[in-house]
Amino acid sequence: MRKLIIYGVGDFAKLVKHMAEADGHYKVIGFCADRQYINSNYFLDLEVSPVDKLSEIYSKDETYIIVAAGYKSMLAREYMFETAKKTGFTMASVISKHACIDLSVNIGKNAIVFPGVQIEPFSVIGDNCIIWSSAVICHDSVVGDHCFIAAQSLLGGRAKIGKRSFMGFNSIILQDVSVGDDCLIGAKSLVTKDVPVASKCIGTPAHIVSTYDQKGVTV
Amino acid sequence: MRKLIIYGVGDFAKLVKHMAEADGHYKVIGFCADRQYINSNYFLDLEVSPVDKLSEIYSKDETYIIVAAGYKSMLAREYMFETAKKTGFTMASVISKHACIDLSVNIGKNAIVFPGVQIEPFSVIGDNCIIWSSAVICHDSVVGDHCFIAAQSLLGGRAKIGKRSFMGFNSIILQDVSVGDDCLIGAKSLVTKDVPVASKCIGTPAHIVSTYDQKGVTV
Amino acid sequence: MRKLIIYGVGDFAKLVKHMAEADGHYKVIGFCADRQYINSNYFLDLEVSPVDKLSEIYSKDETYIIVAAGYKSMLAREYMFETAKKTGFTMASVISKHACIDLSVNIGKNAIVFPGVQIEPFSVIGDNCIIWSSAVICHDSVVGDHCFIAAQSLLGGRAKIGKRSFMGFNSIILQDVSVGDDCLIGAKSLVTKDVPVASKCIGTPAHIVSTYDQKGVTV
Repeated sequence: MRKLIIYGVGDFAKLVKHMAEADGHYKVIGFCADRQYINSNYFLDLEVSPVDKLSEIYSKDETYIIVAAGYKSMLAREYMFETAKKTGFTMASVISKHACIDLSVNIGKNAIVFPGVQIEPFSVIGDNCIIWSSAVICHDSVVGDHCFIAAQSLLGGRAKIGKRSFMGFNSIILQDVSVGDDCLIGAKSLVTKDVPVASKCIGTPAHIVSTYDQKGVTV
Repeated sequence: MRKLIIYGVGDFAKLVKHMAEADGHYKVIGFCADRQYINSNYFLDLEVSPVDKLSEIYSKDETYIIVAAGYKSMLAREYMFETAKKTGFTMASVISKHACIDLSVNIGKNAIVFPGVQIEPFSVIGDNCIIWSSAVICHDSVVGDHCFIAAQSLLGGRAKIGKRSFMGFNSIILQDVSVGDDCLIGAKSLVTKDVPVASKCIGTPAHIVSTYDQKGVTV
Repeated sequence: MRKLIIYGVGDFAKLVKHMAEADGHYKVIGFCADRQYINSNYFLDLEVSPVDKLSEIYSKDETYIIVAAGYKSMLAREYMFETAKKTGFTMASVISKHACIDLSVNIGKNAIVFPGVQIEPFSVIGDNCIIWSSAVICHDSVVGDHCFIAAQSLLGGRAKIGKRSFMGFNSIILQDVSVGDDCLIGAKSLVTKDVPVASKCIGTPAHIVSTYDQKGVTV
């Protein structure tokens, strides 16, 4: 079985550990974090190491790393992904066997895909995306790097969403509509026309209620 | 094959019979009901017995009982569950093999779970809950006893809903939000903050439109 | 393997080809179209024939036809179905093995059913229906011929929708409610009461915003 180090501590890291081990593909052997976030040397009875010391502690043979960064800050998600890449460990994905992903779909590194997700043919998913339970990504859609797609979200056919964006629960982007980088679509919103970068959209139909600055999307 | 008695007659009892037998786990051998609801001695060509006479008619060996109480009255659902318990027959659950329930999830007695349901890790589901097709119950959620969770409903992570409550089609409780006992969340509503007991909530975001008295939630 | 001719060219025909071949049931051997829509003799490296010449070109042995008509015009969907029937080739269906359709369900000819769809017991689906990813059709529902049911739509128990109607993404028809022929239900709408024929309905709760004439529903 492949060994896995999880980059992150807290609820989401616990969930990722559970999912990674549930399908029998990985055995989690430790956690890591940035030094300023390490409050304890152990999490779930496993050692927590500083991410910048990983290669001194673990061998890279058969050992993988995965970023477990939740939805609080999209820029933090990107930062952790880039940091994990620099460790030199191979990046893992955790894709539920109960997700239904067409074989033609191209998914980037460090994907976390929950049960009940449908990804239709010819779609492209960037690196470091989280796609939560029962989300639907219709054919020929494009999801940028570092996105967080919450449960029951839906992208229509040929829809696009840019990098570091967040789709809330059961939000929808209509077919052929494009949403820019660094956007947030509120829960249950319906996006019916193109949305420029760094916009926060809410409602049915969705309208822009504010914009994000260089700190990116926070939830 | 285990023998099953269904407590209830009507459309929902018919559906439960079909589901219980579809996966090959049970053979339904009869129905039962409270005396005042027995209009005919047969339902779907099987005998309908008074629930208070069950143990005189059937042996308890290898014979199970399940309550098939729909959504009309949540108090009636609780009453029937308590009555079924007193019969002394072992309570059955009907959980579709096409539902995806994490192994860490704790589900109470007399559960009826439809295909396409997702229940994520560490959630706790009380006794006598109905969870309809494609509902999603995110990680670390808590569903109280006797709840009716309609199709495509969604509880976010660490959300809670109390006893005898009803979630309408495609309604959502956001992560970390708690809804009290004896509440109704209208179809397509989005609950964004805590809701006290005995409230009827509707809208996006949901607001309280009325309260329930001691007769509980009726739909 | 069965040979399949797809009636239609364009994005949706490409998708149907992919799905038909993905589960290994069919090998697509050609496309066909009405003469006025044939701009090229080839589509996806396969020959495009006039639909009225099919029986001169292909043997009917072990060769099936399927209509790949999208949602632009419901009348065009019906026309193509009737035209395909007249060719004399046997009509095929493409039903994902990741759809969950109860064995009691009756589905008409030329069905296209996507992954994640749930069709509960005792429902009846007419001819030439498209049921997109993660739609839910509850027990005892009726869907008329030539309907297009978009992703994440939901029909409650005993709901009905007439012929040539369109349900938008994540739209809902409540239990026991009937929608007439030639209707359109907008994305994310919630239909709470009966809707007469040829109505366009939008909102939560849905209200009629316009009606359709003899040209039927166009999207």
